[in-house]
Formats: sequence, structure tokens, C-alpha cells
Amino acid sequence: MQTKATPPKVVLLDLRKRQAKETNYETGKVLCSMCTKPHIVAKKAHELFFESNLGDPRLFQETAQLEREVIAQLGNLLHQKSATGFIVSGGTEANMLALLTARNASNISSPEVVLPDSAHFSLQKACNLLNLKPVIASLDESYIVKPLEVEKLVNKNTIAIVGTAGTSELGTIDPIHKLSEIAVQHKVHLHVDAAFGGLIIPFLKTTYPFDFQLQGVSSMTVDPHKMGMSVIPGGGILFRNSEMLQYIKTETPYISAKSQYTFVGTRSGASIASVWAVFKTLGKAGFTEIVEQCVKNTGLLVKELKKYSLSLLCQPTLNIVSFRSNKNTNRLSETLWRKGWFVSYIPRYDCIRIIIMPHVKKKHVLKFIEVVKEIEML
Amino acid sequence: MQTKATPPKVVLLDLRKRQAKETNYETGKVLCSMCTKPHIVAKKAHELFFESNLGDPRLFQETAQLEREVIAQLGNLLHQKSATGFIVSGGTEANMLALLTARNASNISSPEVVLPDSAHFSLQKACNLLNLKPVIASLDESYIVKPLEVEKLVNKNTIAIVGTAGTSELGTIDPIHKLSEIAVQHKVHLHVDAAFGGLIIPFLKTTYPFDFQLQGVSSMTVDPHKMGMSVIPGGGILFRNSEMLQYIKTETPYISAKSQYTFVGTRSGASIASVWAVFKTLGKAGFTEIVEQCVKNTGLLVKELKKYSLSLLCQPTLNIVSFRSNKNTNRLSETLWRKGWFVSYIPRYDCIRIIIMPHVKKKHVLKFIEVVKEIEML
Repeated sequence: MQTKATPPKVVLLDLRKRQAKETNYETGKVLCSMCTKPHIVAKKAHELFFESNLGDPRLFQETAQLEREVIAQLGNLLHQKSATGFIVSGGTEANMLALLTARNASNISSPEVVLPDSAHFSLQKACNLLNLKPVIASLDESYIVKPLEVEKLVNKNTIAIVGTAGTSELGTIDPIHKLSEIAVQHKVHLHVDAAFGGLIIPFLKTTYPFDFQLQGVSSMTVDPHKMGMSVIPGGGILFRNSEMLQYIKTETPYISAKSQYTFVGTRSGASIASVWAVFKTLGKAGFTEIVEQCVKNTGLLVKELKKYSLSLLCQPTLNIVSFRSNKNTNRLSETLWRKGWFVSYIPRYDCIRIIIMPHVKKKHVLKFIEVVKEIEML
Repeated sequence: MQTKATPPKVVLLDLRKRQAKETNYETGKVLCSMCTKPHIVAKKAHELFFESNLGDPRLFQETAQLEREVIAQLGNLLHQKSATGFIVSGGTEANMLALLTARNASNISSPEVVLPDSAHFSLQKACNLLNLKPVIASLDESYIVKPLEVEKLVNKNTIAIVGTAGTSELGTIDPIHKLSEIAVQHKVHLHVDAAFGGLIIPFLKTTYPFDFQLQGVSSMTVDPHKMGMSVIPGGGILFRNSEMLQYIKTETPYISAKSQYTFVGTRSGASIASVWAVFKTLGKAGFTEIVEQCVKNTGLLVKELKKYSLSLLCQPTLNIVSFRSNKNTNRLSETLWRKGWFVSYIPRYDCIRIIIMPHVKKKHVLKFIEVVKEIEML
């Protein structure tokens, strides 16, 4: 740390210069992110509740009330009005809390979790933390987990099964209804990681059963800071009922509220106000409109890629498109980066992944196709 | 979620009404919080880097650079220029990452951690997550851990010792120099939880050895969102050297940066810009001034409490004061809450705890004493 103080004006001028060089969603060139430019009300709500800390909900009761309302709205959306939960730091914390609940509810010395091969890496991270053995179930040719294989992998040590509703790599939806049947039959916790899909799937024209209306679903991750257009950090964890909370309870001996259920202690109240504001502003109607636009632009990208014979890995379920170059996909990805188009390259599928978030407009899709054509000499 | 959209104006009007009822640091009546009103540059920096996500440092390179600079400043302040680390969600994540590093670096089937009886509850939380057995070392009459007892508790299963520099309950500083000697001798990881004290102790007139200048210290928690006057979430974890990072590395197969070390994936870049802005603006000179003011007001509170024969638990080391009523301390605490003075009641010491954060001014201390006198009929 430098010894002397610096005038705030000088500090902010320096920061503004750096910010001007920083990546910006509005260029439409960020095609690799599950986050997007937050909704304008999210930003304003954040500014209003800037100082609020849900590490102490007795001290910040208005914010605590906003959280209860947000969780009720998510519960309503995901078909379990009495669901309980929290706005947390992100999908990693949400997924970890789900596995922690399952682990602590069981009394198994060598606990295992059945994960689809496509499960998010945060679940491996959580298994490492929690000393759980991840057991990997393979995918079918549509890149969704094989329920028969999941069932085979369930044994007396299994504390949870995970299914993904909107995988991070390809946007596929596992057969959650079949996983639910397995969970019910074997009396095992089914966690649905809908960090990305949870605020998309309910607004699609096609119906996918993926939430608490399936009896076997015990917990769900759904992140407002992804398609919920809220600010970072804004993850979401929902549990089917409040009895499950006992397994993640921590006593908080010097805080006015006597216990805590999240992993994080001091917790941004501003994030919660942001989620509340976006949900109120958009409602189901607003979300449906945004999702429809993303799906439409996804369709446009697919059509264009097919026109130039660039092969798709699979027909998109959500607003994620994965394709391969006719030559060298990794090289195409690196060339796109150099030209300022930020795409993901996924080694294990040797494909480029594009996420059509709300900041990616029709004009950006068309421009992107032009750039790809130029690089690929199509 | 409601079906229809709501005009943003209506949503924000509702939120403004709720915010007006929310607890506000500027009243000077929040005496139970280790957070404070963020510095004005923290807020402005946050607004500038609002969209930035360090879940992908290759995408947000300017923000990644800000983080490197902040960590270098912390390393410089805490006497280890080559320290490595991250701005994380808070002290809980920081403490957990430290214990995870120690656990994964060892190869012990029944790992134990020696915790002072005064260690923060997040360390118990981390032990629960990580399947570590917490072994509790008792405190001496000054409420600091007994080094001889710590040494006795170290055995072949010990993966870490923890010391606190600024306990959450009483603001005491464990004898870190002695814990360091034990750590060196027994070749065990010493983690210093300086979540609160890390941005106070370096600016005090009295010197307390507590950081990397002590050879045995392997990692430190130091939270900018506490006395660093930055925004939530803004925790900090520092490791003595970058080799330790291998133990918390997660592969991130579809993100342009190939690995990740924090628990949280998607990570607020705005938080990092905030910390950067406060550090630059204040420098050591600015922090010293703020800390001196807090210490002075702490002294004033102590003097006034003594004047009215309210007994102190211990002479404050930092800006935390703990005292008892001459009658019923818990009842005094509840009466203060009803009158809008937010204090902590700590059951195990049967005391009221007051934290003199920067938002608590001389006039608030004097007013508080008046209120206590009135309730206690002194």
C-alpha cells in the first residue's frame, strides 16, 4: 500500500481510463458469458440498498423481507410455493449448499454423488470440499445423461443425484423427470442445477418438466445474475421445504439473528434488492419477451451456421449454440479472440460455444457470421 | 413471480419507500456491525466496474489487473511482497480456502485443526464442510489463546493452527508470534484470521507482530469490506507463496482462463475496483487517520463506561468495547434495540459488545452513554 493519500478525483480518473479499456457487453461481442449487462432497475436498486448486509437479517429487516419475497416468487415460478431458500454468492455456493444438505442429512461414511458427465465444474469443486466421491454417469448422443446409467450407479453410499437444466457447455436439459423417478424410488436427494436454465425454461414455448412439480426434486440452483439480468453476486438456492435447513444451520453467537444457513456470512443486501427489482419490473411477461428474443437470435445463428456448412454439435435447446470449424476449431476460436469476438472453446467437444445472452442482438449475430466467413474463407 | 410487468418507476418508488425504513449507518446507532458505510470512492468505483466478472479474468483483463495490484498492496502492507491471493466473497470463503489448502496439502485421513475458543464461527462452518475435526484451545484471562495449550493439542493429525488478529467478539489479538514458533517447529500451517484486524493493526501506534513477517504464518484473511470501507462482497485471502495455490486449483474447462482458485466462480469485478479505489485514495496515511479516530472514540466510550461503573470485560485492544450492566445485561441489550440502538449481546460472556466503526462519531458515543444511563438509572 502506498504511504500517501491520493485525491479521489485522480483515483477515479485513473479508474475511468481503465474502465474504458475493459470488456463491454454493449459491443455485442461477448459471446462466451452467462452473465449479461444487468437490467437498469437492477443497477438502481443496487445503489439504493448499497449498505445493506444480510449477514445480520435482524439489523436489515427491510432487506430480509425483500429476500423472502424474492424466494417466494422463485418458489411460485418453480412450482413449490412453500420452497425456502436464499440469494447467495452464485451457482457454486448454491450447488455446494445442496450437496452439504444431502451429506449432512445422511449418515454415510463414504458418501457418493452421481453426477452427469456434463455437470458444472462447481459440483466437482463441491465434492472436493465436502469429501464426496463423484461418480460420473455418461451422456447419450444428444449430450444428456442416461437415466439407466444413473440408476445403475446409485448404491447405498449415494447421498445425491444431480441433473442439469441447461448445461454450461451445450445448454442441454437432462431428463429430470426420469431422475426424479429414480430419486423417489431410491429415496435419494435429487438436486437440479438450473443455474442457467432456471430463468429460461419456464418462459419457453416448449415445456420441459424440470422443477419441484417433479416429486423427487429436493433442491434447485437458479441464478438471477445469469439470465435474471441481476447484478453479481446473485445466485439462488431453493429447498423443497424448510426442514432441510437444519442440515446447514450454523449458530451465530454474537449476531442478533441467532443462526445462519448460507455459506457466506456477510452478504450483499444490494444484490437482493436488484433481484427483487428485476422480478417486479419484468414479471413473467417481461422474461418471456427477453427469452423469446434470445431464442430467435439463437435460431438465426443456427440458420446462418448451417448455410455455410459449419457443423453444429446438437440442435440448441436453450440459447447456446456449439459448432465446429471445417478446418481447425481451436484456431478459429483464437482468431476470433484476436479480432475481439469473445467465444468459448470447449476442448473435450472440440467446439466453439456461443451464448446468445440479451446483450447479443440480431445485428451482432449477423456481423459475427461475417467475421467467421472471412476467417474461414467461406 | 407475478404475471405482468410493472413500470420501473413504480418498482423504484416502492424500493425507495422500503429503503427509507431500512437501517442506516449514518444515524450512528449501528454499534453491532463490522461493516460500515463504504467510502464514497468505493461506491463510484463499483458503479464504474458494475458489469465486470472475474469468473473469467481473460475476458475482464483490466479488472484482473486491478486485483493483482490490490493483492500486491495487501502483500506489501502485511510484509510479504510476493504474497498471492484473491478478493473473495468474505471472511468465510477466505478462512475456508486457507483450511482447504492445508487439508489438501497434507495427506491425513482424520485431519484436525487447532482453533482458539474465540475463533470466528466461520471456521467451525469450514470444519463442518471440509470434514475437519476442530480441536479447541482455551483462552487466558485476557481472552487470548494459550500458546502452551495450542502446542499440546498439535499432533500428527493436525493440518493447521488458527490464530485471530482481532476477534469478532472482543477484538483481542492472539499471540501470533508464539503460534508462529509452534507452526515452524511442528511444520504445520498457521492461518491468521485478520478479517477485522488486518486493516487496523498496521495503523495502530502499538505494534503487534501478526503477519507474514512471522515465519510460520502461511495464510491470512483480511477483509476490505470491514475496516477497509469497501463494498460487500469484499473479503481477502493471502497466501505466503503461489505454490500453495496448487491445492485449491479447479480446472475450468469452458472458460477462457483455464483454472480457478477461489470457491466462488462468477465473481464481482466491481468489488475489486472498490477496494482498489479505497486503497489508492486513503493510502497508509488515510487509514491511519481513520483508525486513530476510531481508537479515540473507543477510548471515550471506555472512559464514560468506567465513569458510571459499568464493568468492562477487558481493556480494548482494537475498536471493540465489551461491558456488562450492573443489573441485567441481556435486558439492557434488548432495551437498547427497542430504542433503536443496535448492539450485540454475547451470551457466553454475558456482555454487550460495541464496535466503534468509522460511522460512529464522538457525538454518537456521548448520546449512547446518555441512553444507557437513562435505562440503567445511573
